Amino acid sequence: MIGENARRSLRINQARLLRRLDELAQRGARDDGGCNRLAFTDADKEGRDLVTGWMRELGMSVSIDAIGNAVAMRPGSEEAPPVMCGSHIDTVRTGGRYDGNLGVLAGLEIIETLNDAGLTTRRPLAVAFFSNEEGARIAPDMMGSLVYVGGLPLEEAHAAVSIDGKRVADELDRIGYRGDAPIPGVIPHAFVELHIEQGPILEAEGIGLGAVTGVQGISWTEVTVRGQANHAGTTPMSYRHDAGYVAAEAAAFVRRLTQEMGGAQVGTVGAITLDPNLVNVVARKAVFTVDLRNTDEKLLQAAEARLAEHLDTIAKAEGVEITTRKLARFEPVEFDRRVIELVEDTAKSLGSTVRQLPAGAGHDAQMLARACPTGMVFTPSVKGISHNPKEHTDPSDLEAGANVLLQVILTLSETDDIPVRA
Amino acid sequence: MIGENARRSLRINQARLLRRLDELAQRGARDDGGCNRLAFTDADKEGRDLVTGWMRELGMSVSIDAIGNAVAMRPGSEEAPPVMCGSHIDTVRTGGRYDGNLGVLAGLEIIETLNDAGLTTRRPLAVAFFSNEEGARIAPDMMGSLVYVGGLPLEEAHAAVSIDGKRVADELDRIGYRGDAPIPGVIPHAFVELHIEQGPILEAEGIGLGAVTGVQGISWTEVTVRGQANHAGTTPMSYRHDAGYVAAEAAAFVRRLTQEMGGAQVGTVGAITLDPNLVNVVARKAVFTVDLRNTDEKLLQAAEARLAEHLDTIAKAEGVEITTRKLARFEPVEFDRRVIELVEDTAKSLGSTVRQLPAGAGHDAQMLARACPTGMVFTPSVKGISHNPKEHTDPSDLEAGANVLLQVILTLSETDDIPVRA
Repeated sequence: MIGENARRSLRINQARLLRRLDELAQRGARDDGGCNRLAFTDADKEGRDLVTGWMRELGMSVSIDAIGNAVAMRPGSEEAPPVMCGSHIDTVRTGGRYDGNLGVLAGLEIIETLNDAGLTTRRPLAVAFFSNEEGARIAPDMMGSLVYVGGLPLEEAHAAVSIDGKRVADELDRIGYRGDAPIPGVIPHAFVELHIEQGPILEAEGIGLGAVTGVQGISWTEVTVRGQANHAGTTPMSYRHDAGYVAAEAAAFVRRLTQEMGGAQVGTVGAITLDPNLVNVVARKAVFTVDLRNTDEKLLQAAEARLAEHLDTIAKAEGVEITTRKLARFEPVEFDRRVIELVEDTAKSLGSTVRQLPAGAGHDAQMLARACPTGMVFTPSVKGISHNPKEHTDPSDLEAGANVLLQVILTLSETDDIPVRA
Repeated sequence: MIGENARRSLRINQARLLRRLDELAQRGARDDGGCNRLAFTDADKEGRDLVTGWMRELGMSVSIDAIGNAVAMRPGSEEAPPVMCGSHIDTVRTGGRYDGNLGVLAGLEIIETLNDAGLTTRRPLAVAFFSNEEGARIAPDMMGSLVYVGGLPLEEAHAAVSIDGKRVADELDRIGYRGDAPIPGVIPHAFVELHIEQGPILEAEGIGLGAVTGVQGISWTEVTVRGQANHAGTTPMSYRHDAGYVAAEAAAFVRRLTQEMGGAQVGTVGAITLDPNLVNVVARKAVFTVDLRNTDEKLLQAAEARLAEHLDTIAKAEGVEITTRKLARFEPVEFDRRVIELVEDTAKSLGSTVRQLPAGAGHDAQMLARACPTGMVFTPSVKGISHNPKEHTDPSDLEAGANVLLQVILTLSETDDIPVRA
């Protein structure tokens, strides 16, 4: 148990946090300053060895489960479920140095801060990194945290095959990270993840931190349009069954849909492939993707229904055949109201500007939210750039985020129950 | 000079025409029944050897010019510029057996019909095939006929490089078809090309033959949109500079433009390439093509202007950079009114249904039209399919087209001047 005055005056060490971020970024380093630590690769193993080494140096006990999730524990003065923070240390092929890593290394920085101050929390503290959050080498993404909470059978995760043809179980054996900690894992008292926003909102609004309200629901659809190839000169417009036009019109519709729905609805047609894709041939076939996201499940369903209806209408009008395939579907996740407000209030009390906002991307926290009260802290991303070597967050913002994480963790570890805003 | 009664009763031999079409289709034959005789390849040489062999067997004198155009002459009873028919024998990679070949082999069939009847025309007759009409291996298309009429310097054509990195001059030497006939070539008294429609209009309207009024003007533009790559989940709609959306919206605009302009205006966005082309990334860059065609130059210019204006508007609205590059631009060609009407009247007199219509694709006749009175005869294309092994025209339609060509050629060769409709 830590006294309230001692607790409130604690601050993390920015230079030490930056040093660890920098050292981890050397593992799987790219020439352009970015990181390439795809899950279960040699570079991932190097990152894991480095971080688990730090965990042990800080006196924590590290357990590895059979999907490679690492959970480091620091005992509390009482036996109780731990307060957990953490994130992931795998990256996409063109990753930055903050995505995921920040949440894990800020956790270690908090532990070292407590060690230096000689303080023991009431509840145990846990710092975790979850395997294969990115899904960039092996689907699904958030694999480790989903297995951790019992949402994906271990056997299924083990049998997943990477884009380079390797089974997860074999890769875990190869890098020595198929452990024996129980699955599902220890259910925390609460889970808090510090992460970069990966979007432009905080920076654009000049706000220091985000109290994340949840994660948008995601609906990915692949649409295939089969029309008829025709000569672009000899075929009058009324004779055409132009798969390319249908794809383009549907992509324009997705934009109109987001405008009409407004609110949190976003929609993207990021991929379009025409066949034969020639200047003077009406496209025989088009394949395109639609990414729809909303924080509200009912609205997301409404968006999906309107897209389906529009595709139906245009297929009839243009005399083409349209088939669709769901590539991914996740319902929105709402974080614990108490944790959201604790993050917001703590940020204010530390002098940061803060706003509530939903996460647009997937995060391990959304899987932990199935098992325990969960929240997230966002730091601004310069220009909203992520999954890119240019990903950047100012050191002062990293520090502010880590200090909010520290104070939130301490509040959660010292109080009987999660505080409710007055 | 042939008497009018002898002339009017002459008919070509369908079986003989089909046999030659079939034999030529064996050169560069594809497994799927189509032809692959890209210009200046070994297969093209085999086709050339076969056809020039036939020309000589028919007693014609064959001259080859420095771009490989072949002109076979049959003397008339008077010294005069010849009445010429012909087309091309190169094909696209996935070509059919009628495109081009029909016009050349129908010409030989006419010569053989006259030989069999022991008839000599007043003016000389010429049957020609022009090099590289398709442009599928080496730009520009209609290369041979353009050089023939002096529209493209020989040196420039010789220096053109194929998609497989070969110079035209070297390829002509390699296949032995760099001849010494003068360039520009002999200017005919008139030129008539029999060709398949390559579009659906005649078949759909149940009309037997087409009297071609000219060739649509063509405007090809490549449009490059540079926006900003962003995460499809974390980037609110209002923050986006979505190159993919701009491409889609512009493609939908091209359709609206053709609807608003109506008439002969057609427009096609046949190629769209997004970068990075991923489901969850707002496209950084889009490259797409716009193919606009009209029979009226002023209207075609108006369509181009409206496209440019729209691209400008949307670039400003979406905060993207748009650059354009002209890939091709040909003004519409109008054929000689007398030849058009002669074709139409001749078809009627032979019992065919016929309509005037413009050609939607490019043809050698449009180059010859720069030098002499020119017209074309179209036969129907089943389902409008061409540049495809499935390309088909019924034998009775081939025969009807060849007989109209025969009678038109004879009229042009026997009369003092091209007849004018009463």
